[in-house]
Amino acid sequence: MFKAQDSLITLQKNINYTFKNLDLLFQAFTHRSFVHEYTREKLRNYERLEFLGDSVLGSYVALKLYSIFDEEKEGVLSKIKSSLVNETKLASIGKGLELQSMILLGKGELALGPTDSVISDVFEAVIGAISLDASNDVAFKTLDYIIGEFEKKNEITFFDANNASVFDPKTTLQEETMRRFKVLPEYLSSKNGEEFLVSVSVCGVKLHELTNISKKRAMKELAKYCLENNLLEQIKN
Amino acid sequence: MFKAQDSLITLQKNINYTFKNLDLLFQAFTHRSFVHEYTREKLRNYERLEFLGDSVLGSYVALKLYSIFDEEKEGVLSKIKSSLVNETKLASIGKGLELQSMILLGKGELALGPTDSVISDVFEAVIGAISLDASNDVAFKTLDYIIGEFEKKNEITFFDANNASVFDPKTTLQEETMRRFKVLPEYLSSKNGEEFLVSVSVCGVKLHELTNISKKRAMKELAKYCLENNLLEQIKN
Repeated sequence: MFKAQDSLITLQKNINYTFKNLDLLFQAFTHRSFVHEYTREKLRNYERLEFLGDSVLGSYVALKLYSIFDEEKEGVLSKIKSSLVNETKLASIGKGLELQSMILLGKGELALGPTDSVISDVFEAVIGAISLDASNDVAFKTLDYIIGEFEKKNEITFFDANNASVFDPKTTLQEETMRRFKVLPEYLSSKNGEEFLVSVSVCGVKLHELTNISKKRAMKELAKYCLENNLLEQIKN
Repeated sequence: MFKAQDSLITLQKNINYTFKNLDLLFQAFTHRSFVHEYTREKLRNYERLEFLGDSVLGSYVALKLYSIFDEEKEGVLSKIKSSLVNETKLASIGKGLELQSMILLGKGELALGPTDSVISDVFEAVIGAISLDASNDVAFKTLDYIIGEFEKKNEITFFDANNASVFDPKTTLQEETMRRFKVLPEYLSSKNGEEFLVSVSVCGVKLHELTNISKKRAMKELAKYCLENNLLEQIKN
């Protein structure tokens, strides 16, 4: 147990936050399988803290994206958010803090080692524990610190949307038309010499057309043009 | 515009929060259709604030449920959360604050009046605006006040799980077995005189059996028994 205590002290240094109630931090590392195998008392596993931390993290990321991506619409912010708040990303932050070595697991789980899913859950549980131990605002400041250190160590920008899938204009246009009008955009193309003449319509209204040697690229360009020029605004539903 | 200003003053009294930056509050009431029809400048609609407010509200409700339902598992908390944070519930709070009379809509939307969906969005946007104008913790305190007043006015308890669908044990057991083992519970029944003898197994392990004159009620009772006695813990996956 001395080793576990050392780890918890190191962790608190690494996240720049000292717990008033260490039981909360301990709970954040307690997997269901450990409670079941090793304890007769009603020791609590981390799942309730994870529930809390998940939503604290969600609102932290929402606030960051709101201020960093000042010109982006709600739909784009939502997409970036789900590309950042997911198991893989959270597990990689968790591993940077060496959470995997502190998780209390049952025998079977211990032999296999914690999965990314468990590490990500524990990271959320730690954030939930901070919000209970102090407040949401303190949890936000701690997240600023953790992510700042993560960025330095990995030489990356965490809140970075340079992710093609996030900004695929054809998908974005489709989602917008589904959301607003419950229809898909219709693309019509005809061969025009070596090139394709492609148009896009929504609810029977032709929004724009252009030519390109690639039909696929033409569709992407059209979607981008419609989004950038807010062409959906002219459609009444 | 004087009338609109009066409304905003009244609203700030009713939510017990005074904005430093009134532009944010104004933006929270600005529907996309209004921006499109009435303004040439890049006036902003409420959608980005709604994105923010949605997650602030989510973490507020998560924190409340965590402390009120002290003994409930994460799965139950998640269910209560989605039964509370939805369009109908949020629109009813919004109507209590008379938000519907302050929303800036385009001509078409104005003729129809704001839908529950729009009122709910605006309520979220107002919460998002408070978190930006002050902080998350202040938004939480404001929500405490708003919900307290809502409860008094309607003589209800907002964070109340007396909602049968939330606690349907058969659905809950099924969700638990799917989540943990990716299988459904198997119910086997045989007629036993006037009654049914029904058993439930998960992953081939028989967890419990009982008799009841109603097969349906027997299944519900079985699921409840398994959940209350943590019988899933004995199954290895």
